[in-house]
Amino acid sequence: MTISIEFPDGSKKPFDEGVSVLDVAKSISTSLGKKAIAGKFNDELVDLQRPIKQDGKLQILTAQDDDALIVLNDTAAFLLAAALKSLYPKMHFGEGHSTSDGFFYDTDNADGQVTVNDLENIKNKMQELVKANGEIKRVLVDKADLLKEFADDPYMESLINAETGVQIAAFQLGDFIDFGYRALLNKAGEAKIFELLSVAGAYWQGKSSNPMLQRIYGTAFFKQADLEADLKRRAEIKERDHRTLGRELDLFFVDPEVGAGLPYWMPNGATIRRTIERYIIDREVAAGYEHVYTPVLANLNLYKQSGHWDHYREDMFPPMDMGDGEMLELRPMNCPSHIQIYQHHLRSYRELPIRIAELGMMHRYEKSGALSGLQRVREMTLNDGHTFVRPDQIQDEFKKILQLMMSVYEDFDITDYTFRLSYRDPANTEKYFDDDEMWNKSQSMLKGAMDDLGLDYYEAEGEAAFYGPKLDVQTKTALGNDETLSTIQLDFMMPEKFNLVYTGEDGKEHRPVMIHRGVISTMERFIAYLTEIYKGAFPTWLAPNQVEIIPVNLDLHADYAQSLKARMAAKGIRVKVDLRNEKMGYKIREAQTQKIPYTLVVGDQEVEDATVSVRKYGSEKSTTEDVNLFVDAIIAEINNYSRTGKENTVESKLDK
Amino acid sequence: MTISIEFPDGSKKPFDEGVSVLDVAKSISTSLGKKAIAGKFNDELVDLQRPIKQDGKLQILTAQDDDALIVLNDTAAFLLAAALKSLYPKMHFGEGHSTSDGFFYDTDNADGQVTVNDLENIKNKMQELVKANGEIKRVLVDKADLLKEFADDPYMESLINAETGVQIAAFQLGDFIDFGYRALLNKAGEAKIFELLSVAGAYWQGKSSNPMLQRIYGTAFFKQADLEADLKRRAEIKERDHRTLGRELDLFFVDPEVGAGLPYWMPNGATIRRTIERYIIDREVAAGYEHVYTPVLANLNLYKQSGHWDHYREDMFPPMDMGDGEMLELRPMNCPSHIQIYQHHLRSYRELPIRIAELGMMHRYEKSGALSGLQRVREMTLNDGHTFVRPDQIQDEFKKILQLMMSVYEDFDITDYTFRLSYRDPANTEKYFDDDEMWNKSQSMLKGAMDDLGLDYYEAEGEAAFYGPKLDVQTKTALGNDETLSTIQLDFMMPEKFNLVYTGEDGKEHRPVMIHRGVISTMERFIAYLTEIYKGAFPTWLAPNQVEIIPVNLDLHADYAQSLKARMAAKGIRVKVDLRNEKMGYKIREAQTQKIPYTLVVGDQEVEDATVSVRKYGSEKSTTEDVNLFVDAIIAEINNYSRTGKENTVESKLDK
Repeated sequence: MTISIEFPDGSKKPFDEGVSVLDVAKSISTSLGKKAIAGKFNDELVDLQRPIKQDGKLQILTAQDDDALIVLNDTAAFLLAAALKSLYPKMHFGEGHSTSDGFFYDTDNADGQVTVNDLENIKNKMQELVKANGEIKRVLVDKADLLKEFADDPYMESLINAETGVQIAAFQLGDFIDFGYRALLNKAGEAKIFELLSVAGAYWQGKSSNPMLQRIYGTAFFKQADLEADLKRRAEIKERDHRTLGRELDLFFVDPEVGAGLPYWMPNGATIRRTIERYIIDREVAAGYEHVYTPVLANLNLYKQSGHWDHYREDMFPPMDMGDGEMLELRPMNCPSHIQIYQHHLRSYRELPIRIAELGMMHRYEKSGALSGLQRVREMTLNDGHTFVRPDQIQDEFKKILQLMMSVYEDFDITDYTFRLSYRDPANTEKYFDDDEMWNKSQSMLKGAMDDLGLDYYEAEGEAAFYGPKLDVQTKTALGNDETLSTIQLDFMMPEKFNLVYTGEDGKEHRPVMIHRGVISTMERFIAYLTEIYKGAFPTWLAPNQVEIIPVNLDLHADYAQSLKARMAAKGIRVKVDLRNEKMGYKIREAQTQKIPYTLVVGDQEVEDATVSVRKYGSEKSTTEDVNLFVDAIIAEINNYSRTGKENTVESKLDK
Repeated sequence: MTISIEFPDGSKKPFDEGVSVLDVAKSISTSLGKKAIAGKFNDELVDLQRPIKQDGKLQILTAQDDDALIVLNDTAAFLLAAALKSLYPKMHFGEGHSTSDGFFYDTDNADGQVTVNDLENIKNKMQELVKANGEIKRVLVDKADLLKEFADDPYMESLINAETGVQIAAFQLGDFIDFGYRALLNKAGEAKIFELLSVAGAYWQGKSSNPMLQRIYGTAFFKQADLEADLKRRAEIKERDHRTLGRELDLFFVDPEVGAGLPYWMPNGATIRRTIERYIIDREVAAGYEHVYTPVLANLNLYKQSGHWDHYREDMFPPMDMGDGEMLELRPMNCPSHIQIYQHHLRSYRELPIRIAELGMMHRYEKSGALSGLQRVREMTLNDGHTFVRPDQIQDEFKKILQLMMSVYEDFDITDYTFRLSYRDPANTEKYFDDDEMWNKSQSMLKGAMDDLGLDYYEAEGEAAFYGPKLDVQTKTALGNDETLSTIQLDFMMPEKFNLVYTGEDGKEHRPVMIHRGVISTMERFIAYLTEIYKGAFPTWLAPNQVEIIPVNLDLHADYAQSLKARMAAKGIRVKVDLRNEKMGYKIREAQTQKIPYTLVVGDQEVEDATVSVRKYGSEKSTTEDVNLFVDAIIAEINNYSRTGKENTVESKLDK
């Protein structure tokens, strides 16, 4: 029988039925036969040995193709398992395969779990397999035989049972057999450029009620230079990663045993958070916001009325049946709560805009696999605000919010962001709140405001919320994920749902527009973001410890150190004195590791002259300063937030 | 047959079986027969007509006996229902009877609910019944007949069905019949001194899922002077009641439809709360506490380990089943969370005491009937702190906490409280954590500390917690309920349960002692308390609006008023300018109603001289002040909290 194979350029060629992918590649050119790594047949990855038995489209993959990295990293995962099996014959195996960022394998070893110290040894064993360059054969195995092979491994057994069909496509290298891959390289030697990265706990099948397995991470490339670039990138990410820094600086921790996605803020992290909370509340109060406290719980009916229960239920926590007919729900958003505040009084056109704000705690049910440090959590406190305006006040209020945002960015030295104006999709207007005039008017109002302020932005059709257009401020996390830093959303729907009104100048009832806005998102996400952009070196006004004082000699200079501390603490400066019985050099190095903005060393000379020897974080040298001058300077620095040295600020530009 | 009746003085007398209480009273003396109001037979209230059919103890009640007021108020409730029935023939009736504080009746009227405006009319109808002075007869009615009588009233039907027995003891006045009373007065005319007080919504049987009934409140006395004293007391309570003031000053509201016991803090209340939160955190940080944020949710296992789930379950919210085997629980207390913080690091004897503090939100399931404004709520934020100490540090730490407390009381001008030292019950030591030496030592340690500080206290045996002795600071609410303002509790058990340790000087593991302490209890309860003691006139540092500026003429003086506001706001003073188109006198009166500390009136003279006309809250007259001097003075006042004018403070006494 002959089959017809179509190539990416559209050409077709006949082949004998059962021809291998490799033979097809060779038939095109000898060099392609040599470079071929795998194929994609009808868009599905196939290894080179795979016989083709029907007509279809075939693409030959070489190292240049992105998908080839999948095959390579799957092969590296396979070799990792093979190496582990030979090192730890009793080891059990969970899942293992390539990811968008390398590969991993989950393991459970009765004779002692694998740790990061074992990685070198495991890597050596993998390199042995690479050198031996054995053939990796694709084999079809009866499910029953595979179950026999893994009779003592409950995880593999479960994975095998989850497969449909009587036969399972597996891959074999010598005695070692494994399955669950689409395609692997044909020779172990082709996966020679790789690195093992880390070991971390991972629940079997991602459920916290299941046993914890050890997940071994690695990454593989076709070129040594690519591997080196990737390792460098990873080191940089790690240096900025708020989870690593959070641990090193003792900012927070999450213990999945006590609650996945529920961070505990240690004193250092809590100090940063408290400073930011007070800052943003004071800024908002000065900008005319009325801060409130509203409960995290409400009757489920409130979220039925708001529509959250219908449209957002899968992100919500399960309701609590209070036994007397009341169902209480942890709120997923604060808007219905602020609507209660608005509705508590009759409102007149004279009072609008009414600006209700809160550091509002909310709960959202994120899947445990999506949770990440402070960036993705289940309990969060949002810098939330809702402005209730007359339709004629929308543009002015939008500008005011933007000005507040940008002024806040200045204070935090946030510079790397883009504005996205999100409109409804003009081709699918029926998907949105139904009021053409409102959409057209408000979209051009927002655009006009951005233009008036001379701000760069891009427009995204189809990115609006169901209930109105919005402006998002977009930024990136250390891991490269997009993140919304701030948002301003017009909402024409919620006022309808809750029948919100104000009395107009005409004495009649009118409908206000609601603007949802968040300046610095959630405390969790914002502080994760700041940790990353500052690489943990928080500016002085935010640093948990602003000053560390180290006496040269504990017997002679501790009193002076303590008196300095008391003097500064009385002025609100956060000061630590290191009175431990350690070497001075050690203490200075540790203060640097803790990224404390100012380290003051005090010895005989300083006591005598009423001075301090000041070393700023990141600097190699110290200067001697008069105590009073130092205190004045640090207070000035703190009061100036992170704006030090800047003159022509965005804020002053906007305020003109 | 003859029965034997024993009197309170121990004497016994024979009577014919079936003798009435009244006849017994008459047999003792004619005057007692006249003064008799009811009896207590074998400690149970009985009306005068009740036939006595067995041997027993009888006490004749006169107006002098406390229990007589129960009979009187029950009779007044009965007359209220009789009057209502004649005024509103279609009315349905829920429960109604005397309380420790008067009487009430729950009603539901199809033709329009009763409001406070109807009370006069209802009172007149009751007075008619009093004048007619009909006999109130006790009758035994077949349950079936009573059900027929109330066939159209679902509430009464339900109450009748809840009665056991075939016959029900009811009381009859003319055509009107009612039941559920132990004893009533014999003549309607005897209940002539009463007042109807108010109408409020009350759920049928206290369940929020049931219909809302109208509860009519009243109070009755034997003497006019007693009634007048009671009404005066009620007016005073109302003037201080934080619920009334909370509404008048727009501090907070609770909407049972959205969530019973879940307060919404309006901007005014939120400002007070925020000021207090910042104050107490700053005080605690200065006192060596490390403030943290910990999640309100945790795995239920945490509360199983802590013992709360076993011993405190009925006060806890239902756990949420997250579907992946995880059960999450809203925390009822913060201690297990702070233990997580302690356990996150290895601890050394050098670091102790470790003081962990938080404004920790907790949830407790109070019955809806027990909920009251901010005083009894279901979601609360506790000024919580846990100190982990070495056993040799207990007394010193206890003193430090006490000193912090008393210094805080000074700042709030809290003077009316008592100290209670609570010990274990020496007769029931097996009911407590088992360590005799620990109890003896720590109890005498606390007592010693109180004596050292020269503080008055009383000792309460049997009032200790299961896990250790404690000190409570007791005060009273406007309604006269006892309330704990602050507490210091030693805990020897929780460190065992969680296996808490620190490394001692000997390099070995030792067990720390945990001290639970709250200085100002929950934000909710503390602000309710402050509202009551200040009668809503918050001292300047706490007042939501510290200054109100009223321009004499909006056209001429508004700019000056605004410039004054900007000047003061920049210094952190909370200022409002009243720019409404209202008369000046009206604005000044309203500022007084809102209890704003300083009202500034500005007109031509003030603009010209750069002065303000200042009126302090509660004062009848104004003084003219230089603006700068006024600003300096108010800032000094704010910075001095509520200590103005005090010299020899408790704090300075304690700190010596």
